[in-house]
Amino acid sequence: MKIITMGEIMLRLMTPDFLRIEQTDSFNAIYDGDEAIVATSLSRFGENVTYVTKLPKNALGETCYHRLLAQGVDCSHIARGGQRLGINFYETGVAMRPPRVTYDRANSAFADASLEDFDFDKIFNGSDWFHFSGITPAISSKTRALTKAAVEAAKRHNVIVSCDLNYRRKLWSVEEAQYFMKSVMHHVDVCIGNEEDADCCLGLKPDGTDVFASKLSIEGYKKIFMQICETYGCKHVGCTLRESYSASDNGWSVLCYDGNQFCQSRHYDIRLVDRGGSGASFAAGMIYGLLHQLPLQQVAEFAGAASALKHTIYGGFNLVSLEEVLELANGDASGRVQR
Amino acid sequence: MKIITMGEIMLRLMTPDFLRIEQTDSFNAIYDGDEAIVATSLSRFGENVTYVTKLPKNALGETCYHRLLAQGVDCSHIARGGQRLGINFYETGVAMRPPRVTYDRANSAFADASLEDFDFDKIFNGSDWFHFSGITPAISSKTRALTKAAVEAAKRHNVIVSCDLNYRRKLWSVEEAQYFMKSVMHHVDVCIGNEEDADCCLGLKPDGTDVFASKLSIEGYKKIFMQICETYGCKHVGCTLRESYSASDNGWSVLCYDGNQFCQSRHYDIRLVDRGGSGASFAAGMIYGLLHQLPLQQVAEFAGAASALKHTIYGGFNLVSLEEVLELANGDASGRVQR
Amino acid sequence: MKIITMGEIMLRLMTPDFLRIEQTDSFNAIYDGDEAIVATSLSRFGENVTYVTKLPKNALGETCYHRLLAQGVDCSHIARGGQRLGINFYETGVAMRPPRVTYDRANSAFADASLEDFDFDKIFNGSDWFHFSGITPAISSKTRALTKAAVEAAKRHNVIVSCDLNYRRKLWSVEEAQYFMKSVMHHVDVCIGNEEDADCCLGLKPDGTDVFASKLSIEGYKKIFMQICETYGCKHVGCTLRESYSASDNGWSVLCYDGNQFCQSRHYDIRLVDRGGSGASFAAGMIYGLLHQLPLQQVAEFAGAASALKHTIYGGFNLVSLEEVLELANGDASGRVQR
Amino acid sequence: MKIITMGEIMLRLMTPDFLRIEQTDSFNAIYDGDEAIVATSLSRFGENVTYVTKLPKNALGETCYHRLLAQGVDCSHIARGGQRLGINFYETGVAMRPPRVTYDRANSAFADASLEDFDFDKIFNGSDWFHFSGITPAISSKTRALTKAAVEAAKRHNVIVSCDLNYRRKLWSVEEAQYFMKSVMHHVDVCIGNEEDADCCLGLKPDGTDVFASKLSIEGYKKIFMQICETYGCKHVGCTLRESYSASDNGWSVLCYDGNQFCQSRHYDIRLVDRGGSGASFAAGMIYGLLHQLPLQQVAEFAGAASALKHTIYGGFNLVSLEEVLELANGDASGRVQR
Amino acid sequence: MKIITMGEIMLRLMTPDFLRIEQTDSFNAIYDGDEAIVATSLSRFGENVTYVTKLPKNALGETCYHRLLAQGVDCSHIARGGQRLGINFYETGVAMRPPRVTYDRANSAFADASLEDFDFDKIFNGSDWFHFSGITPAISSKTRALTKAAVEAAKRHNVIVSCDLNYRRKLWSVEEAQYFMKSVMHHVDVCIGNEEDADCCLGLKPDGTDVFASKLSIEGYKKIFMQICETYGCKHVGCTLRESYSASDNGWSVLCYDGNQFCQSRHYDIRLVDRGGSGASFAAGMIYGLLHQLPLQQVAEFAGAASALKHTIYGGFNLVSLEEVLELANGDASGRVQR
Amino acid sequence: MKIITMGEIMLRLMTPDFLRIEQTDSFNAIYDGDEAIVATSLSRFGENVTYVTKLPKNALGETCYHRLLAQGVDCSHIARGGQRLGINFYETGVAMRPPRVTYDRANSAFADASLEDFDFDKIFNGSDWFHFSGITPAISSKTRALTKAAVEAAKRHNVIVSCDLNYRRKLWSVEEAQYFMKSVMHHVDVCIGNEEDADCCLGLKPDGTDVFASKLSIEGYKKIFMQICETYGCKHVGCTLRESYSASDNGWSVLCYDGNQFCQSRHYDIRLVDRGGSGASFAAGMIYGLLHQLPLQQVAEFAGAASALKHTIYGGFNLVSLEEVLELANGDASGRVQR
Repeated sequence: MKIITMGEIMLRLMTPDFLRIEQTDSFNAIYDGDEAIVATSLSRFGENVTYVTKLPKNALGETCYHRLLAQGVDCSHIARGGQRLGINFYETGVAMRPPRVTYDRANSAFADASLEDFDFDKIFNGSDWFHFSGITPAISSKTRALTKAAVEAAKRHNVIVSCDLNYRRKLWSVEEAQYFMKSVMHHVDVCIGNEEDADCCLGLKPDGTDVFASKLSIEGYKKIFMQICETYGCKHVGCTLRESYSASDNGWSVLCYDGNQFCQSRHYDIRLVDRGGSGASFAAGMIYGLLHQLPLQQVAEFAGAASALKHTIYGGFNLVSLEEVLELANGDASGRVQR
Repeated sequence: MKIITMGEIMLRLMTPDFLRIEQTDSFNAIYDGDEAIVATSLSRFGENVTYVTKLPKNALGETCYHRLLAQGVDCSHIARGGQRLGINFYETGVAMRPPRVTYDRANSAFADASLEDFDFDKIFNGSDWFHFSGITPAISSKTRALTKAAVEAAKRHNVIVSCDLNYRRKLWSVEEAQYFMKSVMHHVDVCIGNEEDADCCLGLKPDGTDVFASKLSIEGYKKIFMQICETYGCKHVGCTLRESYSASDNGWSVLCYDGNQFCQSRHYDIRLVDRGGSGASFAAGMIYGLLHQLPLQQVAEFAGAASALKHTIYGGFNLVSLEEVLELANGDASGRVQR
Repeated sequence: MKIITMGEIMLRLMTPDFLRIEQTDSFNAIYDGDEAIVATSLSRFGENVTYVTKLPKNALGETCYHRLLAQGVDCSHIARGGQRLGINFYETGVAMRPPRVTYDRANSAFADASLEDFDFDKIFNGSDWFHFSGITPAISSKTRALTKAAVEAAKRHNVIVSCDLNYRRKLWSVEEAQYFMKSVMHHVDVCIGNEEDADCCLGLKPDGTDVFASKLSIEGYKKIFMQICETYGCKHVGCTLRESYSASDNGWSVLCYDGNQFCQSRHYDIRLVDRGGSGASFAAGMIYGLLHQLPLQQVAEFAGAASALKHTIYGGFNLVSLEEVLELANGDASGRVQR
Repeated sequence: MKIITMGEIMLRLMTPDFLRIEQTDSFNAIYDGDEAIVATSLSRFGENVTYVTKLPKNALGETCYHRLLAQGVDCSHIARGGQRLGINFYETGVAMRPPRVTYDRANSAFADASLEDFDFDKIFNGSDWFHFSGITPAISSKTRALTKAAVEAAKRHNVIVSCDLNYRRKLWSVEEAQYFMKSVMHHVDVCIGNEEDADCCLGLKPDGTDVFASKLSIEGYKKIFMQICETYGCKHVGCTLRESYSASDNGWSVLCYDGNQFCQSRHYDIRLVDRGGSGASFAAGMIYGLLHQLPLQQVAEFAGAASALKHTIYGGFNLVSLEEVLELANGDASGRVQR
Repeated sequence: MKIITMGEIMLRLMTPDFLRIEQTDSFNAIYDGDEAIVATSLSRFGENVTYVTKLPKNALGETCYHRLLAQGVDCSHIARGGQRLGINFYETGVAMRPPRVTYDRANSAFADASLEDFDFDKIFNGSDWFHFSGITPAISSKTRALTKAAVEAAKRHNVIVSCDLNYRRKLWSVEEAQYFMKSVMHHVDVCIGNEEDADCCLGLKPDGTDVFASKLSIEGYKKIFMQICETYGCKHVGCTLRESYSASDNGWSVLCYDGNQFCQSRHYDIRLVDRGGSGASFAAGMIYGLLHQLPLQQVAEFAGAASALKHTIYGGFNLVSLEEVLELANGDASGRVQR
Repeated sequence: MKIITMGEIMLRLMTPDFLRIEQTDSFNAIYDGDEAIVATSLSRFGENVTYVTKLPKNALGETCYHRLLAQGVDCSHIARGGQRLGINFYETGVAMRPPRVTYDRANSAFADASLEDFDFDKIFNGSDWFHFSGITPAISSKTRALTKAAVEAAKRHNVIVSCDLNYRRKLWSVEEAQYFMKSVMHHVDVCIGNEEDADCCLGLKPDGTDVFASKLSIEGYKKIFMQICETYGCKHVGCTLRESYSASDNGWSVLCYDGNQFCQSRHYDIRLVDRGGSGASFAAGMIYGLLHQLPLQQVAEFAGAASALKHTIYGGFNLVSLEEVLELANGDASGRVQR
């Protein structure tokens, strides 16, 4: 199986321990981004994955390249050039103090990438799956053009398309998001998104749910999932269900739908090491399950376990093995020592 | 508004992570002290604050000076000289292993400071508020004389006086504490203290409460608060209500009284990063609320949020902004990421 | 009182924070091993302890030696020579991600030690207690011979013998374990072991308990303890009762039996710093209690407190004082600051 | 004396130890910039200094503000707003591997600052000295307008003006530099610059010197200094003389000229800790010496010692005291322990 | 061009800073080995490189695999299995205190690898160059068989063979070394080795040189090089010339011979960051130069610059770019900042 | 052989890397003191050593105790009690920036120790050597009484006495030093001291030498050594000859005299890691050499090598082995890797 993902990889500069930016004399450096996490996760699960992006010709771009190579990802279609690598400064939260992100991502190499940077017909030739998140088109009008071109090329090559809606209000308005997403959704076979995403990206809003009240209504999700399938012809929909007890502890489970059945994974209570990349780790898990045609409940358990584990891994990439995900998906969550 | 605080700032040498003193090869260095925390908190909230102390003429004294300046505190009345900076060695606790403090604070510059070191009439001229804690007079007979002189000067200049009783049994006896505190309490407008403080510093003890049993009785606090107001004519009383589940997790809320109404803040469950300075952060929050004449419930919520947040900040000073305190006081404690 | 312990001390290479082996650029270095932990614990409690092992003549062997000396342990009977120090690579777990141990201990100096390396009659002359764990004979056929010789020498010198069964499936089979353990158990006065140990090492298995289901049945333990005493004539039996809520939080208590009475210690909920060495810390606590002829409930409380505290101490040795164990055993587990 | 400096302060992200960007998992964070270093140096020497810049309204801008306040610099004229803080990624060099800087400074708050952000008449009212470097106008056309306005305001208020030419080829061309610098040089009283600066910024080039050959010709410098004074009416000129033996060890001395006399400071051989900020530390030292009307040789010795010491201080600011600079300027350079 | 290298990659555990093993609480973890360094160097220079080894199926083996992938090396012929990864504990030296290596490499996966683990005909099919060092056959009789088979397969496929003699007295005796090396030398086209290697591995010893006196005689090297070419028909010979001023500072240059001309590279004085891998970096540089048919002096300068730079890079792999090596080889060694 | 040393062990708090106190957020913690270094050095060389001091009953005192035990030193005569452990804050120097020490040692447990704390007859019974430095009596009048009593007890038991004069001007005046030292010098068999010590402690001053000019005159030393022997009947005199090129690099050799012959050790150029304890390491080396009756030149070489090596070891104790000292004393100082 050959999988393509496209998006932006950034430098995440995290304060160590629980320090605030103003008190730290150092930042931990992490290189991540939604689609890069999906790519590296699937590569670690044994798939053949190509990651498409544009990186600046400097030491930071080099570093991204080496970090992706280390995970076995095919980097031969990465364009080089542009001004800079996007950065986000990230202050880890604790208890009721939330994590705070200061974005400094304007004018990145990928934001300014153009259609000439990529040969999509070559990229998608012989491929089986294409994944992107809503962040990719949200970055700039140029990346919107890229996303559109990629989705269309994917379809020309009969490639399955998955999209994690992942609405980010700092990157684009609801109007922009809906205008673009509605234009590509008919190409999307597998859609990932929660109620807020469905509302902001697709204008779909079921009654009786209050997204921001942290009262997650499974019924609300079901309605949304059915609406997405009906409206856009998606074959599968999924989302994660985070319960934010605090910045240190979260509840976690995931939900998958195949147009027929709803399967919710087992529930996890998680002490957070790094919540970054959990959504993308779910996407990778769901793609893996669907690619391997697991029963829907097993898809949910696999994607739930993979994304739950991500919370315990520092850094962007979900550095777990297929065996570890299966071990947790099928069984013991007691954290007993493995000797 | 111009605020004055006076007290001792010390070097806190903390073992990193959860190491014990005997196993560590390094100490983290923090400079703090009750009144310095009140000063820096209020300066961060936008107030004009002067901190009064005496620092040795060496690199450690220099460092305190720079750390206070960094927070925008006026240091022009800090005296220089004396022998040394006080030190406390601090082993962070975890679970049922308590934090352990080894004091090495005798003969500090502030402990040996004399009335000639400060010109209180100049200091209090044009000021609005004076804050000190019970630690200041507890340090030495010299600091008792200083405290008395400062309180009297404050009153000459019609300055509001607040006192955080903060009884420390290693510094003075109950007899010494009561002898001194009773002599200045008629000048105190705002008093902060819990039942143990009221008992040890003021000899006030309501029935039916067992301070050391961790069963915090709100009724007991109310009785004590009323007694304090009746006995000494204080206008406001407040205290913090810590529930020590373990050295790692605490419950937290605060209580304020204005001679009429009792307001308890919302309750927080907190994963501790550094509990040092939480009491002083409450004092700063209460002073801010009263200075800005917030309704009493809002005073409690503001002071409760400020002091709850301190537990999540490493080091002595409460490195939060006014906006962050208001955000928590008025709303979301879920710790969701702020993007 | 003079106590002898014999076993292997290894280099534990731990990933810092919660990093995985593949992402770390450094390992924390800890030197530990069951019997070394028992030896250092008892030395810290004020006993006269001799530790018997064999260390390679290189910098790692030197380091073990200095670390043991630092705890006041008599190292004069440690043999030197052989090929290498055993190593275990240890990835700390968090939440539902379990700690993972990668052993690299074959061909260690102790595994290859021979009877000529030690003069057991000299070692046990004037001694009061000998302790070993089931790991010692499990290491190699050579260490089985050593263990047998040591136990027999101990008995020749009227020394009390304690054994922590501690079955390790990676080191020997159930058949090997039972063949050896049954041959020495009649010399064992104090036996430490849970149901799994009793089953694997001794072939004792009560009905109605499922060891791996984490449902700890006190009744099951009682049956096992009685069987051990009846079968082998042991005078005391004890074990720890771990509830693995997750890799980050555990419940903990211990159980002691004197052939008559069962005493369970108070229960602790523990945020883990390092769970390594908790079993050995229990053994040391139980030995201390029995040596000092404490009432059985106090033995359980002492051993329970000592081993609970170990979870909060980073590294192998239980760096607590007698006073701290007594303080917790007799009282406050609230984690309140000790000023 | 009241001194004004204006320029950009950036975040310098340095790899720790001698790591390369691609191999580091963390960056040390330093906040510096030429004029900020001059400002903090002079403040540490006891002068009253105001630093003028524009900082973004985010945690990084906040941090700059606190770091400047910590050094006693007046920050009341710092504008807030704009998009981002400029960044430079800095790989420390060693031996023949040079330090490598990757700039990411486009679109910074200061680069986009406008005349409305500052009230120069208020700023210069009552001031004695204004200092800027050639980096300030090089950043953008907006900062060129700011620089021009500042210099003219300074002259309106009879303020002495010093300029460190500091040509940076990545920021502007020789043509742009000369066009601008020639338009303000008649206002400059004190000029700092070496042969390359004189050539690129002012078009002055003496015969017989090869700037890039590391063969520093004192005669060449003298000719250039005289040309600068003659052409633009400067009263003092100075420059630093670095001999780059390697990225780890440098030779160092400085040269000052008062239109009459040339004074070269003592020569230092320096093991480098952080060469960043050495030029600005020289500028601060020269300004201090001239402000205090020291004899020219003493100006050179003071500025030479201050800037030599900077190489031994990690980070941007020259964290030395007036006493330390005088001690070195007047005497012992043996590095013997000060007990 | 397709290059094959074969050898062992080990875990190097280094004490941080200049700590001794007995005083460190952590080790820095580096994964390196002569042929892995040659492979990664050449991959970074843009060549297509396959690295052949055997790695254990555990987290350490996984990590080696990812670190090699990160450098773009083809790992598809790496066998998996065996017992363990070899380790060397490395104490960095300083001044006259030498670095000390404690090997713990017995029974590694590669030491026990067998002919069945590799399909050499597949590996060498279409290849251009094969490189191995004398360490590979020195490890065990099994690796001697592997080396022989590899060299013979290389020759069957008309692949150029280079060998870095690299005699290690702890791994094999002079007799074993000569017995084996003489049996393969007639297949070696490019030989790397100094006088000690020539003596121990090949029994060649010119008069008048004292290898251990640090008095490097260029004449001695010339004689040896000619003898090697005459005796075994090698086309090129090269070696490095280290002058060990101390453990902190070394002199460095390299020497190349093509059967006709001797070329010595420029001389470098180097402050050492990590001398590990400098020999292999020279081999990689020489192979690159010969592959690209550079003039011999340029081969020497390229290989000299590459290996000199390695001393400034922490860790095993020579993390420099082709551009950086060329920059140094062709020019500036002053270590001036690159802005 | 049984050796006694007596003195104060302190906590040295060092800034990491080359940071200044005002910029560091942590201190490295080292426990050392002249006589403790002599004791641990001799213990590491295989001697039986007892260290006499007084330590506070707190975690810092405990830590000293464990660190001494780790080196095999007999701690059974250490008294416990008193107020505090002395501290010195130590800023490492670099290049021409000198190391700076801020003492905070007043009122330490040892400074307040009394004669009742030690049973000198028991301590010296069966002993062979007693060593103290001039720091011990300099600390307080109490330690002067202790020193006198110890020296007299040593003589009662026919113990050889060595004294390292080590004059410290911050601890006592020249008058106090001479008054005390002259009163015990007739008991001193082996005296260590340079010209400054001889001048300040004994009032001996040869012509033609300028101690502070760093021009070390061997002739001057010889005159002083002869004067010491003649005046006080000492049998051996020795001193170290430091050339402070800078705070980073020093020259080093040592000089020994036996009343007849002067032997100077080989000269070392040293890159400094930690110069602390080099003098005490020389003392230990000289004592070792004399105890083992080595020829005087070998005494000088041994003591020179031991003390030179100390400069390369971080921390207070000279963590080298007898073999390493002999290896350097007898031979190779090239710093070549030991594989």
